[in-house]
Amino acid sequence: MKSYTELERRFHRLSALSDAAAMLHWDSAVHMPAAGAPARAEQLSELELVRHEMLTADDLADLIGEAGEETGGDAWRAANVSEMHRIRVHAAAVEADLVEALTKEGSACEMVWREARPANDFAAVEAPLTKVVGLVRRMAEAKADALGCDAYDALIDQYEPGARIERIEALFDELGNFLPQFLDRVLERQAAETPPLPLDGPFPVAAQRDLGHRLMERLGFEFERGRLDISLHPFCGGVPDDIRITTRYDVDDFAQALMGVVHETGHALYELGLPKDWRRQPVGTARGMALHESQSLLFEMQACRGPEFIAFAAPLMREAFGGHGPAWQAGNIHRHYRRVARSLIRVDADEVTYPLHVILRTRLERAIIAGDLQIADLPGAWRDGMAELVGITPPNDTNGCLQDIHWFDGTFGYFPTYTMGALAAAQLFAAAKSTVPGILDAITQGEFAPLLGWLRANVHEKASSATTDELLAAATGAPLGVAAFEAHLNARYLGTSES
Amino acid sequence: MKSYTELERRFHRLSALSDAAAMLHWDSAVHMPAAGAPARAEQLSELELVRHEMLTADDLADLIGEAGEETGGDAWRAANVSEMHRIRVHAAAVEADLVEALTKEGSACEMVWREARPANDFAAVEAPLTKVVGLVRRMAEAKADALGCDAYDALIDQYEPGARIERIEALFDELGNFLPQFLDRVLERQAAETPPLPLDGPFPVAAQRDLGHRLMERLGFEFERGRLDISLHPFCGGVPDDIRITTRYDVDDFAQALMGVVHETGHALYELGLPKDWRRQPVGTARGMALHESQSLLFEMQACRGPEFIAFAAPLMREAFGGHGPAWQAGNIHRHYRRVARSLIRVDADEVTYPLHVILRTRLERAIIAGDLQIADLPGAWRDGMAELVGITPPNDTNGCLQDIHWFDGTFGYFPTYTMGALAAAQLFAAAKSTVPGILDAITQGEFAPLLGWLRANVHEKASSATTDELLAAATGAPLGVAAFEAHLNARYLGTSES
Repeated sequence: MKSYTELERRFHRLSALSDAAAMLHWDSAVHMPAAGAPARAEQLSELELVRHEMLTADDLADLIGEAGEETGGDAWRAANVSEMHRIRVHAAAVEADLVEALTKEGSACEMVWREARPANDFAAVEAPLTKVVGLVRRMAEAKADALGCDAYDALIDQYEPGARIERIEALFDELGNFLPQFLDRVLERQAAETPPLPLDGPFPVAAQRDLGHRLMERLGFEFERGRLDISLHPFCGGVPDDIRITTRYDVDDFAQALMGVVHETGHALYELGLPKDWRRQPVGTARGMALHESQSLLFEMQACRGPEFIAFAAPLMREAFGGHGPAWQAGNIHRHYRRVARSLIRVDADEVTYPLHVILRTRLERAIIAGDLQIADLPGAWRDGMAELVGITPPNDTNGCLQDIHWFDGTFGYFPTYTMGALAAAQLFAAAKSTVPGILDAITQGEFAPLLGWLRANVHEKASSATTDELLAAATGAPLGVAAFEAHLNARYLGTSES
Repeated sequence: MKSYTELERRFHRLSALSDAAAMLHWDSAVHMPAAGAPARAEQLSELELVRHEMLTADDLADLIGEAGEETGGDAWRAANVSEMHRIRVHAAAVEADLVEALTKEGSACEMVWREARPANDFAAVEAPLTKVVGLVRRMAEAKADALGCDAYDALIDQYEPGARIERIEALFDELGNFLPQFLDRVLERQAAETPPLPLDGPFPVAAQRDLGHRLMERLGFEFERGRLDISLHPFCGGVPDDIRITTRYDVDDFAQALMGVVHETGHALYELGLPKDWRRQPVGTARGMALHESQSLLFEMQACRGPEFIAFAAPLMREAFGGHGPAWQAGNIHRHYRRVARSLIRVDADEVTYPLHVILRTRLERAIIAGDLQIADLPGAWRDGMAELVGITPPNDTNGCLQDIHWFDGTFGYFPTYTMGALAAAQLFAAAKSTVPGILDAITQGEFAPLLGWLRANVHEKASSATTDELLAAATGAPLGVAAFEAHLNARYLGTSES
């Protein structure tokens, strides 16, 4: 046990350092004044460097090899050693100077992008993005050698361990065959219905926040272990003992921010539910971004846009905003939350069109990493792809290829996990409902304990003790697939009863 | 220059790590939910450990020795190497396990203290405090060996480099001879005057905060480089590019919180004024806690409790809170800000009695570290000392020896710097006024640029390029002394004209 114990000690230290970085990231988005950015970048880059030094220590590979013999048949210990190995391989594949260059050029490019996006000035980011892509490709190739996979796979593997593009593309192809015709049918049906009555504001921020707090508590969020704050781009940050979710409020529209809070609460519940006994070990962390997104989408899209939750939440909404009359009836609010449209912006897209945005990005970033798409050609490829997949063409790059922070900050290989998460969410929710029959009735009463209990046992507490597919197979009877997602869409948007 | 350059690189990294810790400390006080404390303690302790490892690297002493030969006669480089040496000696004197034990026991004792203070339960903290003191004494003795000074001196040296108790005690003896009789005379004179008219609230928090912001900007605070937030114990945290000051508001009394904001702004201006060219090097940091406190007290006690600033600020106060009538005239407000009283709580004490609180604590902590005062005897020694020095006896330990966080969190040797700062503040403000004659007139107009310019040139931009006494001598013509402070008190409290 000597090597294994030494590894636990080292990874405990690495975990404390990445926790520190997580808190500083949160602060950057929520509180940091503008002039603090360069110093913050130095703090984060130094933490990254210290971690990289620890992960590339000369004796680490040997310790991991020895520890593999010391697990005594304990599956969690064995999984912990596998995760240590995976983390070390990713780190050791890349020289410290490349890590540093990527951090630096990613930050610089992101700064340019922040001004280029509102200015619709793709030309301004072309050179910095080309530089970032060059570094990302170098990193991807180094990791690909170490992992024995393709360059783009190596990037995906950073966010969704073990996932490979061949498999993802098969899923996306199925979706690509289903969604366009399905979308036509949904839009046709929607056009034949009366549109929902408008929910008129203004909706004061304090009232929105208080309602968000109430619903978060209902969902199972523990405020002694976390917070809700405001940031420009909503996210779930912090650490499992101190989870920080954020949202942004629009005084003319409470509905989107509220569902945003539900979404981030889903992420938070995953972190809050990770096994305490493995808190600072690799095996005790969230499995990957696909399952992470499945937890946020399970709450947002599956559970809380359904008629059961809206029936519970509508009176609270009326109370929070003084709403009354037919517009504030649950049925009308539910219609708002089921609107589908071909639209330009991914983060505002409904669950039917969202995968089409992701399929486009996956296609483009794969081509960029393969060297098949030059950055100069990106705006055109984006427009063509939107026309083909979503059926709408962006009038400018602001609402086109400049809309997402990904790529400009050096993030490639992350996009597919959004849609993998949507598929997993549908699959898990269907399994939860069939295993625990009272789940929907409980949600109608604002009770999430039955659902959360099932998720804790089947996802949260499993942490990284198995692969995503193994976890899904154990929980739902099958690895990741599109069937449950398509069934969900059919039922909700073309079904005879509301769902 | 090879060794010097290598040292700059390493201390740059150390600086980024301590900046990260500073931001996390701020978050702990301002935002962290209760359950986040253990994880935060691990983050901070890990950052401390990484720093300790870097500072005890085998080759560091040799590099510092070689770099001393490479400064090429550049005074700042030479001072930088001296500071590196000092920092290394402090770190290397103490084993990592003692650092860790002290952090751990200090946190544990502080937790007990947080409940023991309101409960007036000294017995509860006696054992944990005894444990902390044992570790602090071990650390103090190890550092004393390395520095060639006494154990208590070694503790003071952590906060005020080069300061020694013999010198401090001589200053405190002078004050101890002056203050008690002076206090009698002030109280006698005050009793003969009509007391100030009450300023009736409530004072809404938002109005207090907005007024604080306005005054901070007047003083020279740059909001693009910092923030004002709320915490239970006001402090100045963050880093020079991103300064975070805090306050707490009382809706029934705006006056204390407002002066608290001015106080922390004084600290902040020091950090904001440090030389950018030396940003991440030891020589570029604030000189020590005595000068740091001098900057906060110079703004709070010297400049902003004077009639010139009150004349400027009174109309803003009336505007902020809708105040009118004689109570809201500058003269009456100024009388509030000049009230003197024998009181139990250091942080609420006026500038006349404050040093007496500090003299007591310095005497007690010195005896504790020397082993001459047992923790069990602390409550009694505190009561006796208060009766002798301040002329008032605490009715309980809550308002006696349990009032300060110092000691319980492991901080010994810090207290003297509060009064050293008060002396330095008086000395610097007197010198500033005589060198730049327009300073007071400018303050009457709410203009702080002349004062701030002098402080930048004489204190802030000097950073750690010289000792505290060298800086004071260059700026004021003399090392730290009591004359200016006594003259200030005489003029303000017994003078014929208001000051």
